[in-house]
Amino acid sequence: MNSKEFRKAGKDVIDWIADYYEKISEFPVMSQVKANEIRDDLPNDIPIEGESFECIMKDLEDIILPGISHWQSPNFYGFFPANASGPAILGDLLSSGFGINGMIWSSSPSCTELETHMMDWLVTMLDLPKHFHSSSSGGGVIQDSASSATLCALLAGREKITNGLSNIKGVRENLIVYSSNQSHSSIEKAVKIAGLGIENLRIIDVNDSFSMKIEHLENTIKDDLKNGGIPCFLVATSGTTSSTAFDPLVEIGEICIKYNIWLHVDAAMAGTAALCEEFRWINEGLNNADSYCFNPHKWMLTNFDCDAFFIKDRKALTETLSIQPEYLKNSLSESDTVIDYKDWQIPLGRRFRSLKLWFVLRYYGIEGLKAHIRRGVKLSQLFQKLVLSDNRFELMAPSPLNLVCFRMKGSDEINESLINKLNMTGDMFLTHTRLNDKYTLRFCIGSPLTKRHHVENSWYKIAQAANEFV
Amino acid sequence: MNSKEFRKAGKDVIDWIADYYEKISEFPVMSQVKANEIRDDLPNDIPIEGESFECIMKDLEDIILPGISHWQSPNFYGFFPANASGPAILGDLLSSGFGINGMIWSSSPSCTELETHMMDWLVTMLDLPKHFHSSSSGGGVIQDSASSATLCALLAGREKITNGLSNIKGVRENLIVYSSNQSHSSIEKAVKIAGLGIENLRIIDVNDSFSMKIEHLENTIKDDLKNGGIPCFLVATSGTTSSTAFDPLVEIGEICIKYNIWLHVDAAMAGTAALCEEFRWINEGLNNADSYCFNPHKWMLTNFDCDAFFIKDRKALTETLSIQPEYLKNSLSESDTVIDYKDWQIPLGRRFRSLKLWFVLRYYGIEGLKAHIRRGVKLSQLFQKLVLSDNRFELMAPSPLNLVCFRMKGSDEINESLINKLNMTGDMFLTHTRLNDKYTLRFCIGSPLTKRHHVENSWYKIAQAANEFV
Repeated sequence: MNSKEFRKAGKDVIDWIADYYEKISEFPVMSQVKANEIRDDLPNDIPIEGESFECIMKDLEDIILPGISHWQSPNFYGFFPANASGPAILGDLLSSGFGINGMIWSSSPSCTELETHMMDWLVTMLDLPKHFHSSSSGGGVIQDSASSATLCALLAGREKITNGLSNIKGVRENLIVYSSNQSHSSIEKAVKIAGLGIENLRIIDVNDSFSMKIEHLENTIKDDLKNGGIPCFLVATSGTTSSTAFDPLVEIGEICIKYNIWLHVDAAMAGTAALCEEFRWINEGLNNADSYCFNPHKWMLTNFDCDAFFIKDRKALTETLSIQPEYLKNSLSESDTVIDYKDWQIPLGRRFRSLKLWFVLRYYGIEGLKAHIRRGVKLSQLFQKLVLSDNRFELMAPSPLNLVCFRMKGSDEINESLINKLNMTGDMFLTHTRLNDKYTLRFCIGSPLTKRHHVENSWYKIAQAANEFV
Repeated sequence: MNSKEFRKAGKDVIDWIADYYEKISEFPVMSQVKANEIRDDLPNDIPIEGESFECIMKDLEDIILPGISHWQSPNFYGFFPANASGPAILGDLLSSGFGINGMIWSSSPSCTELETHMMDWLVTMLDLPKHFHSSSSGGGVIQDSASSATLCALLAGREKITNGLSNIKGVRENLIVYSSNQSHSSIEKAVKIAGLGIENLRIIDVNDSFSMKIEHLENTIKDDLKNGGIPCFLVATSGTTSSTAFDPLVEIGEICIKYNIWLHVDAAMAGTAALCEEFRWINEGLNNADSYCFNPHKWMLTNFDCDAFFIKDRKALTETLSIQPEYLKNSLSESDTVIDYKDWQIPLGRRFRSLKLWFVLRYYGIEGLKAHIRRGVKLSQLFQKLVLSDNRFELMAPSPLNLVCFRMKGSDEINESLINKLNMTGDMFLTHTRLNDKYTLRFCIGSPLTKRHHVENSWYKIAQAANEFV
């Protein structure tokens, strides 16, 4: 594609995206297609000769678009926010344009150094413990997701707690991992991947607010010790996916110190809220964490993929993940004066992801980002009030931030029918969870496009739909 | 960022990228900055209020650009190609624009179905074994990198060979992995991650062409069996990073069947060559592979990250990696009529990566991609001839595709000085390896911008620089 054609096609794509956002509320939020419908529409024959860009864009519009669930829609309240924004999209575009691979420092110094700079900015902006700053023994790195961050934390913890002897008989099979029954599925996945065996994952009970019960935790640890177990790794969650519950970090931290357990804190969605002074309580107790992650790609206006992962002792990570083949050896890396982020992650290669984060932080500034968070929380408080104003409904969990968990008083079936009905209209998208063994609707606000009238309209439609089930 | 501003800023970025490519040969290929130079130039203060887009773009030009190593430069011959192209950049831009998360089918059906469609296209285009097609028991998925693909293959292999009992005492510590001393560093990394223990990785010798010695392999397996080992997983490489060596897949496949070992084939760079009938020999023996990967983001004009990973028995993978939290449950996924790619990879979330691959395959067509590969191979043959024409130099390995391994006759120090000198000029970028324990220069061609005159000029400069060392 020559320069002239790239300029033309590129500007067309920019306009296409701008047009898309202008009409985004008109689409059914959740794609209404059936299984295999998209594939059936896609051209079957692989083109022998190339096709025109216009032709591809036409198929994008006609075939791909109907199969998109519109995560950026103002009426998307499902799962969790997955913020995109203009500066993030364009920062990422430049990353694609450069087409560099940031595996080691020398393979593009800007990629590494901007990333370190941005991770340090986040430490300051969110008032994270100083040991996560690159000037300390620790530091930060961008991972694709909290799942990968948790896996990296587990691997570092596995090696550090065992002094690198995790594979010795009598050690490996006895390593025990702890998390609550509300924590993220990625923990179970990481335990399987790391070869610890799912039977060595202890699922700790939660209290009425869905946060980890300290007593049950400590008793479980004691039992494990009695039975020859080696407590190794604990994941505490600051803002669970299910209900934004917070585990008691202060008490958990003390226990982890007492029993020499690596403490990883997962604040995937909620972490961004610490930008605002009034929500900074979410970091209380974080000073005892060995590692921490949150996702700017959830609630900080930065396109997926961008998970910020911090570690107190970077050596624990790099000693676990560093492999030095001949073709990557170079004097700077060997002198330890630069960071090679390949040793901080699972893959070898890496995109220039800090660029989009830099664009976001500079374009919005701290105040712009705070305003974004505050708007989301305020709208969720509004939604809570609306739920409470209708006595056919009940709240199912505290809503400290931007997620409201609620249900119709009545059976699980009614609530399942209600959510299916709402999602089928295409007017909005909600997902569900189970809390206290009851089918519960989740209404999560985080899109910068969601305004007061969207929330009010959505509530109106929910209340209307409920009429059918009363 | 409102629509008007996005259109303006977006078009400026498109022009910036087009301008960048027009002058890309003017930059020193390898960034010439020193450690911390970029960080020192970056603004230290986190902006309180947002800044203008122009202001950020100015810093991109002034601060970031000097710290870029230009992987897309026609004079970049280091590591391996990392092809970017107009259609891939724009496909990826649209993926950022949509801002969807393709973790499960319903979270955007197009994301899943286009990916399956593209993976099936690749099976056809490259004439891969039919068991990698989604209509069989297997299928394909896009991973971020061959490292992650290899890890997923290892995990699937670990569970399949042990019937899911990899964690049982007497099993886990005895699982043995095989690969040659020329295979990629990601194998060692995967073995560490999966908790198998690096002492259970057997490094098999290679012959004069740097391909795995079958005799040594079989003897090692027999020894392991004698000592209570459980042969589990073997990685064969089709085109090593070091020298594009090919392991003998036919013989290796027979051994893997005989001893019940999972065979994973890593063709990260070379795999794309099978587009051309004359290079399709690289797939010989692939029919016995349980899994296979190659990187369209290396030599198939598709921006990083895009590794195509194929598996013969998709259940072996999904049973290892599937976790079903309540909030992701839905009737379609449970009915098994759709694919949830979250169960085919390490992370939960995923970008819409098939879009860029679709744009590339359609824009260039099979013939366009073949021409790209043939041009690279032809230029490397030209470079080989130039090396052979100068008796101060010697070739160090066969060059079946696009990589030439060569050195000056003389000491390692001379060759190290030569490469450092060449890279310091900024005129080109080469990396090195060790072959037969000799420091060896690698000249790898793959950029669509590299033309005959670049290769000739580069050779001329290499020969000139050599004068200093004779």
